[in-house]
Amino acid sequence: MFYFQTTNPHKFQEAKIIFEKYGLKLERIPNKYKEIQAESLEDVVIEAIREIGKERVFIEDAGLFIDSLNGFPGVYSSYVEKTIGNEGILKLMKDVKNRNAKFISVVAFLESLSPLKIKIFRGEVKGTISIEKKGKEGFGFDPIFIPLGYNKTFAEDINLKMKVSHRKKSIEKLARYLEEAYG
Amino acid sequence: MFYFQTTNPHKFQEAKIIFEKYGLKLERIPNKYKEIQAESLEDVVIEAIREIGKERVFIEDAGLFIDSLNGFPGVYSSYVEKTIGNEGILKLMKDVKNRNAKFISVVAFLESLSPLKIKIFRGEVKGTISIEKKGKEGFGFDPIFIPLGYNKTFAEDINLKMKVSHRKKSIEKLARYLEEAYG
Repeated sequence: MFYFQTTNPHKFQEAKIIFEKYGLKLERIPNKYKEIQAESLEDVVIEAIREIGKERVFIEDAGLFIDSLNGFPGVYSSYVEKTIGNEGILKLMKDVKNRNAKFISVVAFLESLSPLKIKIFRGEVKGTISIEKKGKEGFGFDPIFIPLGYNKTFAEDINLKMKVSHRKKSIEKLARYLEEAYG
Repeated sequence: MFYFQTTNPHKFQEAKIIFEKYGLKLERIPNKYKEIQAESLEDVVIEAIREIGKERVFIEDAGLFIDSLNGFPGVYSSYVEKTIGNEGILKLMKDVKNRNAKFISVVAFLESLSPLKIKIFRGEVKGTISIEKKGKEGFGFDPIFIPLGYNKTFAEDINLKMKVSHRKKSIEKLARYLEEAYG
């Protein structure tokens, strides 16, 4: 059994589906944990998983990084989503030609406490910021993100998201690692 | 002698001028320190000063809280300023009627380690977000903030800022406390 500590039930669902594909059992720990202010998602999750300090637990942090906004909202994506939301991002991107962006997801898994062994897995998906909000599925910035090579937002097509998303990639890397090591 | 730990030389200058008025000596510790992601400035500084763990040291954190943006950029003001900047805030505020905002400054002073005694001082200044950037003085969001009762931004009139600012108030509360306790 492995444990995904997250307050976000959507994220847990996404992870559980992937874990099942690899024959791995996953439970959710819904508790909050402390996050530091840092420039990179890696710094945030490494510090946080050390504080959590429990074996077989992983956490995940993700962000939307928009090129023309110098990486904003980046590591603070969830705060930005709660305050200015998708509408705020679309307003900031009004009349902006370069709409390139990427979603990044970073997983930190605490494999053992002594010696301390933390594994990091990263997933990334490139895309563009849409002109308007579209779709009702997913959460966060899904309604304004169109992955490269497609013409729908993540919120318009949850299967597309489950296939190509940043979190799909990072969690799948973790699941493959666990299958190899523990399967 | 007291110590202000800050990477920001502007903030130190503002504090030093106030301390001198109260006959108190102040030195700068220019080192970075860890900040957590939190909803309030108080949570950020209390946690940070505990980690620093040195007597007679204080830190200060400030943010711009805009009513119509649900408090954005708030505790993440310095990150937002570095990425989307004043231009980004003005774009978000385009055609927005309610331009009310406030600057909040919170100081945490570590008075003693054993028993642990941390004093918190808060300063606040109400105002509005200007229609365009004005002025070259100060730093951060000073060029777009007009304090209530005036018609200039903080960046147009540094003396106005030194007189009514959030940090003026929080640091002055600290200085008055120190004068009383140690003077």
